[in-house]
This record gives sequence, structure tokens and C-alpha cells, in this order.
Amino acid sequence: MTVITLTTDFGGKDGYTGAVKGVILGLNPEAKLIDVTHEIRPQGILEAAFVLSTVYKYFPAGTIHLAVVDPGVGTARRGLIISTPAGFFTGPDNGIFTFILRDFYSGQVNIDSGKITLPPSVTAVSLTNPEYWLKKVSNTFHGRDVFAPAAAHLSLGVPLCEFGEPVHEIAALPGYQPVCRDKDSIHGHVIHIDRFGNIITDVRESDLPRPVYSVTVEIKGYVISRLVRTYADFDGLAALFGSSENLEIALTNGSAADVLKASINDEIRITCK
Amino acid sequence: MTVITLTTDFGGKDGYTGAVKGVILGLNPEAKLIDVTHEIRPQGILEAAFVLSTVYKYFPAGTIHLAVVDPGVGTARRGLIISTPAGFFTGPDNGIFTFILRDFYSGQVNIDSGKITLPPSVTAVSLTNPEYWLKKVSNTFHGRDVFAPAAAHLSLGVPLCEFGEPVHEIAALPGYQPVCRDKDSIHGHVIHIDRFGNIITDVRESDLPRPVYSVTVEIKGYVISRLVRTYADFDGLAALFGSSENLEIALTNGSAADVLKASINDEIRITCK
Amino acid sequence: MTVITLTTDFGGKDGYTGAVKGVILGLNPEAKLIDVTHEIRPQGILEAAFVLSTVYKYFPAGTIHLAVVDPGVGTARRGLIISTPAGFFTGPDNGIFTFILRDFYSGQVNIDSGKITLPPSVTAVSLTNPEYWLKKVSNTFHGRDVFAPAAAHLSLGVPLCEFGEPVHEIAALPGYQPVCRDKDSIHGHVIHIDRFGNIITDVRESDLPRPVYSVTVEIKGYVISRLVRTYADFDGLAALFGSSENLEIALTNGSAADVLKASINDEIRITCK
Repeated sequence: MTVITLTTDFGGKDGYTGAVKGVILGLNPEAKLIDVTHEIRPQGILEAAFVLSTVYKYFPAGTIHLAVVDPGVGTARRGLIISTPAGFFTGPDNGIFTFILRDFYSGQVNIDSGKITLPPSVTAVSLTNPEYWLKKVSNTFHGRDVFAPAAAHLSLGVPLCEFGEPVHEIAALPGYQPVCRDKDSIHGHVIHIDRFGNIITDVRESDLPRPVYSVTVEIKGYVISRLVRTYADFDGLAALFGSSENLEIALTNGSAADVLKASINDEIRITCK
Repeated sequence: MTVITLTTDFGGKDGYTGAVKGVILGLNPEAKLIDVTHEIRPQGILEAAFVLSTVYKYFPAGTIHLAVVDPGVGTARRGLIISTPAGFFTGPDNGIFTFILRDFYSGQVNIDSGKITLPPSVTAVSLTNPEYWLKKVSNTFHGRDVFAPAAAHLSLGVPLCEFGEPVHEIAALPGYQPVCRDKDSIHGHVIHIDRFGNIITDVRESDLPRPVYSVTVEIKGYVISRLVRTYADFDGLAALFGSSENLEIALTNGSAADVLKASINDEIRITCK
Repeated sequence: MTVITLTTDFGGKDGYTGAVKGVILGLNPEAKLIDVTHEIRPQGILEAAFVLSTVYKYFPAGTIHLAVVDPGVGTARRGLIISTPAGFFTGPDNGIFTFILRDFYSGQVNIDSGKITLPPSVTAVSLTNPEYWLKKVSNTFHGRDVFAPAAAHLSLGVPLCEFGEPVHEIAALPGYQPVCRDKDSIHGHVIHIDRFGNIITDVRESDLPRPVYSVTVEIKGYVISRLVRTYADFDGLAALFGSSENLEIALTNGSAADVLKASINDEIRITCK
């Protein structure tokens, strides 16, 4: 009974997620479907990339992760299945797997100018074999017509090479890597704002010089110089390494994002002392 | 392991969907529950009818679809199980199955004045046998007390005739059929607005004279004369046949519904050339 | 195949619920995961306590209910597993199980000053044994790192005593019991506002003198003297005993909560005649 997870921007009010689930179960009634989220902001590739990167590692080996945020649906952008040591991923070739692939590089990450060369532990194919699509493929809904059948056939044991030709380089989100300006200072970006208004950045504890005694975070003109352990430990604004291991800015009993008027892509500077 | 899908207006924040799921699993722990949506607008029978009609056909044969948007709960309106070649449907007799039934008519659809005579391929019963209700039935929550047990008992193999007496005519949503005014012009309605702001109408490609080289769509005083293939193909407003095979109006990188201030039931006129 | 239900304030747009599901399936791929809701208002312990109390009783015996609304995460507040005749409950010791425990008292409920002594039919442990946590426990996400593994290990048959030491007294929400001022009058509180705007109180039919011929409800300066059976029976504002068996105030085709500007914790007085 293979687990197939779903991460999309299809929302909760339409039939889009239901159709995807129906297609998968129509092909493999034994598949175990798990919603990660369907509330990714419409066309929010970065948001989906981040959310998926925080959940995939907890699922059983062999899990298939379907991730569809697909503004280029119906155009020449490829569909992918990527096989990694932590499971399979299927979705459009638009950067949605950027953060996951970073996890499988042993050393320096090689993301340049919107492309990533696949690391040695990872293989991928392009979904070009129509035998594994729905018979009728719409121009606007490859989540249902291409990616759902791919996930279902994969869960039934179809080998990767059957789905299409090998792929060695895929699209990556450019720039989402913190940059060290000097030995004490790191520049990063806001990559996610969660339901509680926590501002989550692309800076991880491992990006900082160790040991970190204290940090100063500059964001949107604010300077935050408290590094705390958990949300109940402080009043006001503070920085902490959250459950994703990324640096986040939080506000006691409120939304840090609202107070700082923070948005995805805002720059952040961290100085370590 | 029977699949039971759920389509309701119960929303995500209360215990209503959880109670329905509990009742089904309490009776049949092997049932496979699949959320289609619980975010149908409160009392949005039309919305539920449309959403369900876009998903049911993808599920395995024998799937049971529970659909509950039920403003008349506790009144004399009947509860139904409908058996079709594509699966079973249970819910209130208030028009929620209108679009699905249309799919099982081979010829002209026979929907008049709010009633539909069941086509030959379809049978139905009224849920009058209290043996298949919860022991205590509330006045306000038949989703939990009547329809969930019906779905569960059905998944356990109880024959249709056990649930109550046969039904030959059921409620239909009146008017949701495009009308040809002359050989080149069709009048329809907006029946759904999706998460992305796409305006979806009740006009399907098969309703148009073939072959269609171009169309002009009039809606809310706007005239749209572009018929495109997919969302990434254009800038601005355009018409396309979407993944539901219905004509929709879309706006590049925005909400067509917001720009046109479109609502459910708005009229649309399509002229083919 | 054990059912594990999930009730949280994690929302739908982040990876928090996905991570919890992944951890559970990573430990027990056979577990059957059922979303009750993830849309509890952030830090809405009372809301979660009420919602869970309306659903748990419908699930199969042996079901494990994971409930995490946890503003005190990372502090000294305990984590619990509670074993009841109706199933297992795991979550933080912050009052989230108040209404459920009330159901297992045969006589007078013993809730005083924020503490509840466990009734004889109920046993509980504190989650102090790190063998049943994730190897790395974050300070901010015990839903994933402590409660999800607890639910998974419990579903695999680990006995309660393995998880930590016995607990005899747990936190309760103070005050959420209607108080009889005299033989005809009861004072209660608003404990929930549902998706439809129905105002749900902590007063149950069993709290009233029987038989009840009519009631007068005073709330926010309004006096409502209609007690009806179901939503389609009236126009305007009315009181009814809803599907949770609690007294609620409803408005035909509208939101009673909006019209009365009602909020959680508002007082209500009911006079019986």
C-alpha cells in the first residue's frame, strides 16, 4: 500500500483535488492518499517548494510525492518524475523541487541561473510516454491528466524508464540560497509566511558560523537582537530556529508578518556575534 | 475496500465533517474516505452539483459519493441513494445530482420545472428505513445521522431495496441547460467561479455547432472574442474550454471573476462563427 | 488498521499537518489517518476542546485522537495520552480534553480552578519517555516530534505505561459549565461559532429542568423566545438544540453570530417556563 502525498495550489472549494484523487484511485485503488496541502497561494511555486521540503523526509521510504503548482500548464515545460533516496517526486519542471534536491547534495549546492544539475544520488525522467497519461489530456489540468496517472502507475510498480527519457538538468528557483557577505554576516530571503504570521527565511542554523552566541537580524528596517528557543519564551518580536530548522521571526500572541509588513522575497541580513 | 467520497458545505473549522467520518468508520472501519471538498458555499446546492459532476467519473467503479448541502434538513425533503453505471450517490433530494444525471441520458435531457425523471440506466431509493439510520436522528444533521450510515451500510453490501422504497422522479436544478436561440447563438449561465477566479459556465463544447472556428462571448457587458487553448497562451481576458469541458472565461495572472464582477447565475451569450 | 484522527490549529497552508502525517506513517504505514480539522483558530484551545467532543464518540473503539493546540509548546507543560472507554487521546495538558472527560463522569463533574481529577474510567500518562519521541525534538513543534510518534507507537500496540509515569489530575478549562441560578434559570457561555454563524453554548438539554415547554434566551441584550426544531422551521432568530445537543442560536439564511456580534465566552441566560 504505497503512500502518495498531494501538494497543490488547487484550493479546497473546487473539484480539482477530488479529480486528482479519483484518477489515482481509479488506477490503483490500494494507494494511500495523504493531503499535504492544497492551499498553496495560486501559482506559488516557491511556497510549494518550501512546504514540501519540510514534510517529505518524515514519510516512509518509497512514498510518492505529487506536487503541482503549474502556471505553465499546456506549454512546453516538461513533466517530471524524480527518484531520490527519500522517495519519488512528480510534478512540473518549474523549480518546485529546488529545496528537496539541495538536501541530496553532499557538498556545495550547484544551483545557478535557474538550472540544477541533478546530484549523483538522484535520477529523473520526463513524462513523455502517453501510455501513462489519461487517454484524453486537457490543456489546462495536467495534475489530473498527466501527474496523477504518473503517480498511480509508479505506485503500481512501473519502472521509471517506462515513463519517458532520462533528464539530467532541471529547473531551479534562482537565488534561494543565503549568501555569506563576510565571516559574520549572512544575507537571505523570506521564503514563507505561515498561518501564525511567523516569517520564515532561507537561512538555516548550518549556514551560520558556529557556535552562535547571539544574532542581530535586520529585516524591513527593523533590528531584532533576541534569539530565543520557543514561542512562549518571550514578549514581542524575536528570532528563533523553527521546526523547519530555518531562521524565523515571530511575535508573541500576534503575527510578525503583519507587524513588519513582510512579504515573500523580502531581504534579511543576519549578523552573528 | 470501498471508496466513499465526501462533498459538503460543512466547512473546515467545525466538527461536522469529523462526525460524518466517524460514523462511517464506526460502521465500516475498512471504508476508504476521500474528501472531495467541504468548502462548498453554505447552502450552495448548484456549486456542489457542479463540483461533484467534475470528479465522480474518475473514481473506481462502485465508489459511493456522499454529497450533503442540505438547507431543507429536518423537513419533508427526501434522502436518496442513486445507483448509476459510474457509482452510487447519496444525499438530499434537492437537485444536488442534476448534472450527474444529465450524463446518463443518451439523448435529450429531460429536466423540466425542477423535476427530473430518472433515465433507464439509473435506479434510486428513498432513505425511509430507520434500521439504516443512527439510532438517534437529530433534526439538523442528517449528513451524520442518515447519509453517513447509508453510505457505510451500502459499502458493507446492503442491497439498495433495503434502504427504502424506489424513486422514479427526483428534484433537479431548473434552468441549468444552455439554450440555443438560433443556429449560431447559445445562451447559458455562470455556474461556478473557481479558486483562480475562472468563470465557468454551463455551456459545453458539445453544445456548440461544430466545427467551431471562433466564438464571441458576451457577459456582463463585456465582449470577449478570443478562444484560446490554455492559460499561458494569452494576456488579458479570453475564453477557453477548461478541464471540465465547460466554457470558461479566464484572465492572465488574475481573477476574471473579480474584473467582470461575475456571480453565479449571470447570463452569458455565445455566438459562433 | 487503527484509526488516528487529527485536530489541530496548524491550518491548511503550511507543512505542519503534512509533517505530522509523515511521522505517523513513517512509524506505522498501516495507520488510517483522518482529518477532523486543522482550522481551529490559532491557540483556540476551547474551540478544539468543543469540536473534538462532538466527534470522538462516533469513531470505532480503539481510535486514537491526536489533538494539538499548543501555545505552551517547549515549556514545562506536560504531554499526555489519556485512555478512555471511547478511545485514546494524545495532546498537550492544557485543557483540550475538558469536555471529553466530562462525558466519562457518571455523576457530578469535578472541574475546579483549572484542574480535573480523572474519573475512575479513565487512565493517563505523561509523555516523558524519550524512546517514543522523534530522535531530535524541536522546541516549537511537539505535534510532529512528540505527539505524532506517541499516536503511532500507541497504534502499534505499545502499552500506555511505557510512555511515561501515570497522571491523576490534568488541566481543565475553568468555568465551562452552565450554572443554575435558581430552578428556572441557567447561566452559560458561548463556546463555539460554527461556519454557518450558529452560536453554540455550553448549555445542554440535560442541564434544563424537564419537560421544557418553552425557553427565553438572553444574549448580548437580545431576548429570543422561540425554541424550534430545525433551521427550516422559522424566520429570523431562534434557539434550538443542535446536533451537538447544545443550545444554539440560529438565524434563517444568515449568520446569527454576525447579527448579534457574538463572541466566544459571551454570557447567556436561559429561563425555562
